[in-house]
Amino acid sequence: MNGKISIVGLGPGNVEDMTPRARAAVESADVIAGYKTYINLIPELVAGKKIIATAMMQEIERAQLAIAEAQKNFSVAVISSGDAGIYGMAGLVIEKILELPKEVQPKFEVIAGISAVNSAAAILGAPLMHDFAVISLSDLLTDWELIKKRVECAAVGDFVIALYNPKSKKRVANIEEVQKILLKHKDKKTPVGIVTNAGRDGEKKIISTLENFTQEEINMFSLVLIGNSKTFVKNNFMITPRGYEKKILV
Amino acid sequence: MNGKISIVGLGPGNVEDMTPRARAAVESADVIAGYKTYINLIPELVAGKKIIATAMMQEIERAQLAIAEAQKNFSVAVISSGDAGIYGMAGLVIEKILELPKEVQPKFEVIAGISAVNSAAAILGAPLMHDFAVISLSDLLTDWELIKKRVECAAVGDFVIALYNPKSKKRVANIEEVQKILLKHKDKKTPVGIVTNAGRDGEKKIISTLENFTQEEINMFSLVLIGNSKTFVKNNFMITPRGYEKKILV
Repeated sequence: MNGKISIVGLGPGNVEDMTPRARAAVESADVIAGYKTYINLIPELVAGKKIIATAMMQEIERAQLAIAEAQKNFSVAVISSGDAGIYGMAGLVIEKILELPKEVQPKFEVIAGISAVNSAAAILGAPLMHDFAVISLSDLLTDWELIKKRVECAAVGDFVIALYNPKSKKRVANIEEVQKILLKHKDKKTPVGIVTNAGRDGEKKIISTLENFTQEEINMFSLVLIGNSKTFVKNNFMITPRGYEKKILV
Repeated sequence: MNGKISIVGLGPGNVEDMTPRARAAVESADVIAGYKTYINLIPELVAGKKIIATAMMQEIERAQLAIAEAQKNFSVAVISSGDAGIYGMAGLVIEKILELPKEVQPKFEVIAGISAVNSAAAILGAPLMHDFAVISLSDLLTDWELIKKRVECAAVGDFVIALYNPKSKKRVANIEEVQKILLKHKDKKTPVGIVTNAGRDGEKKIISTLENFTQEEINMFSLVLIGNSKTFVKNNFMITPRGYEKKILV
């Protein structure tokens, strides 16, 4: 007999932006597994539960501990901030479950959440009204050459570009290399929005340009959104038009 | 004196996946504006309110009617399914507000929701663990040549690719052209997930391959997710590994 694992996206971190489905999965769980910072976002929902709070870079251990609890017939919620399905824990947990013999696999479900790209866009205005590419600049698990290639492809395709993990304490130069690649293909005045701590204490919104944005404060809690060739800024809002007006005029 | 417009993403369409912030904005509004199909998703939340239910393709009229109500000091919720900030109503409403003289501009806010790409990914397993591109195949507002160029760039960059509006009654050949472009750059066995009516009655999940997926049922309520070169299928789940194992072995 096995328990169930819910892999839950909390959204930005406040209960107002967490879906009822996500909240119910956390509240009904016996065990909560997640990165400490995320568990600390929802103290009132996890009080009294068994907590498996591992540090960053201990994702495999966290997934295996969660599975072991479910195999003991406990109900487990593995939490990520944002959407567990976007750079979150969903993939690793499912991989580890499916590696097991069928008879000892716990049941599982993924519960989507509001990801950083959704939260940041809402704060900036409407930058994602047209096609967009989502790229993580973290080279811990991905070759830097591949990341740069993707940035270049997204620029050539005139996508709006959302950068996750744009900068960390140890990794400060990547964002400047990305800027150089983008400047080869995009106008230097292209609007760039930076949202830090979206939906959390200390939320900050900056609107800059492609030539200047790397001078702004960017950290591991920032999401950077680079406009396409049609994106404009008005009254400090960033808008990518979808083209309704053009169609009316044609 | 002016009222306020909340531009609200409902998520897939059931209250379990709608954030408390979105629900509160709908419940507290005097006036609800939106495409009829979306209003019909939440009859219990809009009962007794003034409804501005316009048809598809009447987005400009809908935005202007919503603004006029807010200028009469009513509280207005303009609703989109999914995330109002992703191919939703946010851009047009903000554009129309900011065109007005400052003294008659209503206040506004965008409330993010679970978009189709998030919902579909959760149902398919974990296909979005790595960089992805989101592309709408609707050529009503976008030149088809630009759409094809973006598909090609996303394929060259080995992005996971999410296709919104993959097919409608009038537009059936675009998806086959897209398939041909992708086959130039991606293995024909690349996993493709199709989720129709995610989170609604009649939800359906299909996992196919790049060479075969256009033979499956795809309609305007479908989201198509095409894997990257690492995406695999196991036990009918679609997973794009992020690379934890590789890093451990290195």
